[in-house]
Amino acid sequence: MLENIDLSRKIGKDEYKKGIEDLRLKLAALQRRLTELKIPVIVVFEGLSAAGKGTLINELILPMDPRGFQVVSTGAPNEEERLRPFLWRYWTRTPAGGRQAIFDRSWYRRVLADRVNGEVSPTEVRQAFEDIRNFERTLADDGNVIVKLWLHISRKEQARRFAKLRDNPATAWRVTKDDLTAHKQYDEYLAAVEEMLAETDTDQAPWTIVESTDRRFAAMKIFSAVIGAMEHKIAEVECRQGQSAPPPREAVELPAELSSSILDGVDLTLSLDVDEYIKRLKKAQTRLRELEYEIYIRRAPVVIVYQGWDAAGKGGNIRRLVENLDPRGYEVVPIGAPNDIEKAHHYLWRFWMQMPKAGHITIFDRSWYGRVMVERVEGFCTEGQWKRAYREINEMEQHMTHFGAVVLKFWLEIDKDEQLRRFEDRKATPYKQWKLTPDDWRNREMWGAYKQAIEEMLFRTSTPQAPWTIVESNCKWHARVKVLETVCKTIAQRLKG
Amino acid sequence: MLENIDLSRKIGKDEYKKGIEDLRLKLAALQRRLTELKIPVIVVFEGLSAAGKGTLINELILPMDPRGFQVVSTGAPNEEERLRPFLWRYWTRTPAGGRQAIFDRSWYRRVLADRVNGEVSPTEVRQAFEDIRNFERTLADDGNVIVKLWLHISRKEQARRFAKLRDNPATAWRVTKDDLTAHKQYDEYLAAVEEMLAETDTDQAPWTIVESTDRRFAAMKIFSAVIGAMEHKIAEVECRQGQSAPPPREAVELPAELSSSILDGVDLTLSLDVDEYIKRLKKAQTRLRELEYEIYIRRAPVVIVYQGWDAAGKGGNIRRLVENLDPRGYEVVPIGAPNDIEKAHHYLWRFWMQMPKAGHITIFDRSWYGRVMVERVEGFCTEGQWKRAYREINEMEQHMTHFGAVVLKFWLEIDKDEQLRRFEDRKATPYKQWKLTPDDWRNREMWGAYKQAIEEMLFRTSTPQAPWTIVESNCKWHARVKVLETVCKTIAQRLKG
Repeated sequence: MLENIDLSRKIGKDEYKKGIEDLRLKLAALQRRLTELKIPVIVVFEGLSAAGKGTLINELILPMDPRGFQVVSTGAPNEEERLRPFLWRYWTRTPAGGRQAIFDRSWYRRVLADRVNGEVSPTEVRQAFEDIRNFERTLADDGNVIVKLWLHISRKEQARRFAKLRDNPATAWRVTKDDLTAHKQYDEYLAAVEEMLAETDTDQAPWTIVESTDRRFAAMKIFSAVIGAMEHKIAEVECRQGQSAPPPREAVELPAELSSSILDGVDLTLSLDVDEYIKRLKKAQTRLRELEYEIYIRRAPVVIVYQGWDAAGKGGNIRRLVENLDPRGYEVVPIGAPNDIEKAHHYLWRFWMQMPKAGHITIFDRSWYGRVMVERVEGFCTEGQWKRAYREINEMEQHMTHFGAVVLKFWLEIDKDEQLRRFEDRKATPYKQWKLTPDDWRNREMWGAYKQAIEEMLFRTSTPQAPWTIVESNCKWHARVKVLETVCKTIAQRLKG
Repeated sequence: MLENIDLSRKIGKDEYKKGIEDLRLKLAALQRRLTELKIPVIVVFEGLSAAGKGTLINELILPMDPRGFQVVSTGAPNEEERLRPFLWRYWTRTPAGGRQAIFDRSWYRRVLADRVNGEVSPTEVRQAFEDIRNFERTLADDGNVIVKLWLHISRKEQARRFAKLRDNPATAWRVTKDDLTAHKQYDEYLAAVEEMLAETDTDQAPWTIVESTDRRFAAMKIFSAVIGAMEHKIAEVECRQGQSAPPPREAVELPAELSSSILDGVDLTLSLDVDEYIKRLKKAQTRLRELEYEIYIRRAPVVIVYQGWDAAGKGGNIRRLVENLDPRGYEVVPIGAPNDIEKAHHYLWRFWMQMPKAGHITIFDRSWYGRVMVERVEGFCTEGQWKRAYREINEMEQHMTHFGAVVLKFWLEIDKDEQLRRFEDRKATPYKQWKLTPDDWRNREMWGAYKQAIEEMLFRTSTPQAPWTIVESNCKWHARVKVLETVCKTIAQRLKG
């Protein structure tokens, strides 16, 4: 997902000046209140080299009373630390009630640098994720506020920053050999970070992605995330003490202008001309038919999920996907509203009934993701239910992959104008009119609410074992070829592995 | 822990007749109420072969309306099932709202029979535990009542039952080859069951151990566990609908006369005469000194925890343990009430500060288990805090063992009479008087409450990687030798493994 995040976000000088001053005053006041209430706070700064951790930590602590916080810098473990379990040096530095610990890099080293450098085995990485989740849950249950920040820049931006530092004799020393190695390993880091986010983004200790190309944007976002989490905890404690009403959950959410976007960065101009379309389509379809037999022989189940805006072209896309397949090997399952029997069961039950057996392909035209889209937006389930669903869905997909399934998920993205064009076209074309319902127009009105739900879905359910692929679908030809080629590539890779 | 559970529990015929009739009426009424409230119920029967699952399932369903429940028998998976992830056949059989599914064996097959028969790899076992925990949590979060029963009999009782069945031509067919193989593998099953209990005993889907030597006792316990869980959920739902007060947590706990006991089965007559004591003590002490050097060279950390009743002999036991050791290699850490700085941190923090480094031994004279004993019984922490602590403690110890630590925990058990004798002795002996405080007499008054807390502690925190050893300590000589020999044996094994 990280490669899709829109890193071009900026905030102007004047806007920043005005905004940050308020946030500084707020943070200082909150720090005092946290001390009174004896609430401990942990802020974790992680990020790519040269993403600006040092500068941004300085920004954050500027308005804070230095008697209350401690900045803990962690490099490679020293000899004393190496003789203990990896969490020891962090456990012993957890803050007392009313104090703040700001970690400049942290226990995530174990699943990032140590992992990329091959210092921990795959088993140790799995154990580390478990130990980290337990560690953070234990502290959160005890009343700690935990804010985890991932500072992100593009590979190009990282190169630019290193070059700039090295050009100046006064700063050249700051670029170490490790930094340059890390730059070369940018893609490996990215893969490790993706897995880290999927494994350790929890309700009690969530990650905030900080787009750090623009220092001002990054600072505003960090202040907002830290302040939001502090305010939420204070309100929770005050409510428990009978001093105020329970805090709304949105209190902890970032304002829209600061939250990360995956969809905003999608390049919808991508397209194919007819010749290339036909050529690549045929080639991929032929390849997929070969793979269909191969997975049958190898007994691998394949799950393919289609989601997308109304009129994004799911139907036509699926038709091209299966056009050349042996119908005994696949099934297309269209998903609508649940019936009465389905409603009486767990919402995942009806999807379990449809799961492919080993050696077969099931294509879901819409899916369990309805829970966190339409059911969330329309209020068909409670907030608790859809919030829980991210984890439940990830676990269900993980259970499939434990069994050896290939799970592929496609989000068909179009923009609002393109949707309107297609709606108008459907209205005007007699044999397409049945496709357009009043619901489509109604959903279109709620584009904003759906977009927010989709962004969160893409972020929370893109896991290494079952990642989302964003399909730029303004050009249907491009979209069809992209899905087909992605399916072929992924299945072929899995059969090799 | 299972080998310590008191399996001799019985209920007389008359008492049973009177009690079971009430329970049957209650269960029938509850079933109707569950249907009204659309609450789904899952009851899992697992247990050793010949433990009486069939008979006891029949007992349970007797008073129930057959239109509401379904008994799901699961043997080896059929071909359709083998082509799907192992939870598929259970997911598709989860009950609708208002219905009950009674599983005669279940998804635990994967971590019991399949595991013992070597059909799943160690990695698959780990994944299965994770998948099972997620499965049950997902269902519980959706409102399912989940009751899991482990029917337990001794190896001897199992043999007796098989023999009886085989003696009678009408029942001989019921003892299959698989059963006889399972009997031979009794110890391997036991180890698998211990790990299963440790990995999957959760707040939302707890295990109940059913001592099944006596059918009447087993039936009473099963009815009580099922009824307790149903009542608790109904009260919870009614409370949410504003119809009643929130249910007390104890509602779901079994009455004392039915709850499992580890301590009641301990043989406190075990003793040594002086010659054997001296001989074995010296031998073990010499061996431990050799091992102390070996763990130093091999960089293994060792954590030894002592807990026990007041005057159980912890101090003298520790002195014999370290008598012959090189003092540079070990440390004894006595644990009392926390100081102010310790109180301002997470309760585990002060123990983290004391954890041994690799190659060293730390002996805790009392420990983090204070949280679930004295702090629980005296109300020094909230119910939520001590209930949470079982899991937090298990996770901390697991983190140590991930690092390669050997974790040993000893419960020094004496009976109430022996404690009194020792208190009187301390009172009468001038140089021992300092050992006896008013607190000791006060704690003695609360023997019952402490016993309940200790039983639960032993059950919930005995894990395969960090098991409790019960030390029969009425005879101090026996106790000292048992600890020393257990320490030697465990360290030697770990160094080999």
